[in-house]
Amino acid sequence: MVVADAHTQGFSLAQYLQEQKTIVETALDQSLVITEPVTIYEAMRYSLLAGGKRLRPILCLAACEMLGGTAAMAMNTACALEMIHTMSLIHDDLPAMDNDDLRRGKPTNHKVYGEDIAILAGDALLSYAFEYVARTPDVPAERLLQVIVRLGQAVGAEGLVGGQVVDLESEGKTDVAVETLNFIHTHKTGALLEVCVTAGAILAGAKPEEVQLLSRYAQNIGLAFQIVDDILDITATAEELGKTAGKDLEAQKVTYPSLWGIEKSQAEAQKLVAEAIASLEPYGEKANPLKALAEYIVNRKN
Amino acid sequence: MVVADAHTQGFSLAQYLQEQKTIVETALDQSLVITEPVTIYEAMRYSLLAGGKRLRPILCLAACEMLGGTAAMAMNTACALEMIHTMSLIHDDLPAMDNDDLRRGKPTNHKVYGEDIAILAGDALLSYAFEYVARTPDVPAERLLQVIVRLGQAVGAEGLVGGQVVDLESEGKTDVAVETLNFIHTHKTGALLEVCVTAGAILAGAKPEEVQLLSRYAQNIGLAFQIVDDILDITATAEELGKTAGKDLEAQKVTYPSLWGIEKSQAEAQKLVAEAIASLEPYGEKANPLKALAEYIVNRKN
Repeated sequence: MVVADAHTQGFSLAQYLQEQKTIVETALDQSLVITEPVTIYEAMRYSLLAGGKRLRPILCLAACEMLGGTAAMAMNTACALEMIHTMSLIHDDLPAMDNDDLRRGKPTNHKVYGEDIAILAGDALLSYAFEYVARTPDVPAERLLQVIVRLGQAVGAEGLVGGQVVDLESEGKTDVAVETLNFIHTHKTGALLEVCVTAGAILAGAKPEEVQLLSRYAQNIGLAFQIVDDILDITATAEELGKTAGKDLEAQKVTYPSLWGIEKSQAEAQKLVAEAIASLEPYGEKANPLKALAEYIVNRKN
Repeated sequence: MVVADAHTQGFSLAQYLQEQKTIVETALDQSLVITEPVTIYEAMRYSLLAGGKRLRPILCLAACEMLGGTAAMAMNTACALEMIHTMSLIHDDLPAMDNDDLRRGKPTNHKVYGEDIAILAGDALLSYAFEYVARTPDVPAERLLQVIVRLGQAVGAEGLVGGQVVDLESEGKTDVAVETLNFIHTHKTGALLEVCVTAGAILAGAKPEEVQLLSRYAQNIGLAFQIVDDILDITATAEELGKTAGKDLEAQKVTYPSLWGIEKSQAEAQKLVAEAIASLEPYGEKANPLKALAEYIVNRKN
């Protein structure tokens, strides 16, 4: 697929995604070497290397490169972002949480290793993520600390965990306001997507106003990403998704399509992505990867 | 109690512990301000502020001060160590792990907030711990990164989590070797106690050979700590412990007393502590707090 859009002329997103995914998969594989006790490393690697689109690491690398940094400067953080994302999926799938048996087309971590190991594998991935950022070679220490602070905010009670809590509290309620739904998603999905992009920028040595501009880009694509997720939960099959479909309806979750209908939800996602792409105009062709990634987010099928 | 030992003459450990505990409690209380969503902050604070001896933060502050640093330089890391310790207790108490109802004389986190929130509260405390170290004011960024790397090693698969996994794998086995028991405890308890002391030293700007010396001190008291824990599980009451007593026997866990008997276990703990104290001789009176803390570890009643 060649995205022949005016914004990203001549740029092959499919080729870019494939290349970047291969680079990220290799780096992830090398990030975690099996040692004693073997069980925990296997459990960590089982979920970390289970595939997925690797959107978060790719966003981080793309932001760093757009701002003049190298892939090497952002690679540890890119891997750390995938470790954190994986941790959140492992814990989210637990019986005490969403109780999911299937993830990326494979049995969930606790189905293979047991609940106790799954909890510990998540904990180990989370702490290793921070360690791995701190181990980045050839980047000024001050930048790494900034990234670590932002990662902490994105994952903890101020971010992902906070979003999960409000999501849990809203389950089964039919009168959830759109503000609450926005809170859930800007925290549960949005905060981590945002730090992918801002961390990449910070590692490259971006000025605060550039980081700010990329924050807005990321907020727009983050919300669009979630709206599309909600739509796909209704329209896609389990085979396409690699996880159970129709979970939101079954759990009586309020979603964007349930509030707005599918058509208006699609229009809203398109609008957010158009804004994200427009905000990158100052960067010209250098922004092609981030622009194409924004379009991919609304057009994806899983 | 005045420790009138030759090593720590005129130093009141009881007064020191009381003062330091108060300082740490205040810092912990201020470290985590309740905001939206309230539930998760309450759950985090419930366990973080549930009392306890605060040995880990006190060790960190004492090591930093012995090496010429200030309490302010080590306070964020001291709090982070208690956050990590608290996370490990919350997750350890879960039904899928040790299934404990009582901790520090109070219902465990999941008994009060539910399993889902308890898992998330642990995750949030863990990520906040790293963020909080990275936010330390007035300490060179390079030192903070070193501390973050060591924290990650101490908590993850190389440390605490690795120890937990081998502990889980050894449960119900009656033929556990002393090497395996040592692996469990140097990882499950020892690694975090060690980083308390080495992090304090690094924050103060200690030379690598000083950090090395303090590592050995911490390894000795860490193992002594665990041996005494095993003894107290047999000899102390639930009231004294603030948690269920006799759990090890019930779970058929191999412990130091089960391998060596109580008397030899006590002698071994004494020997380890004597070595730890002797290693601090070069620091003279400045080492009084760390020496007294080592003695406290073998003489404590809970």
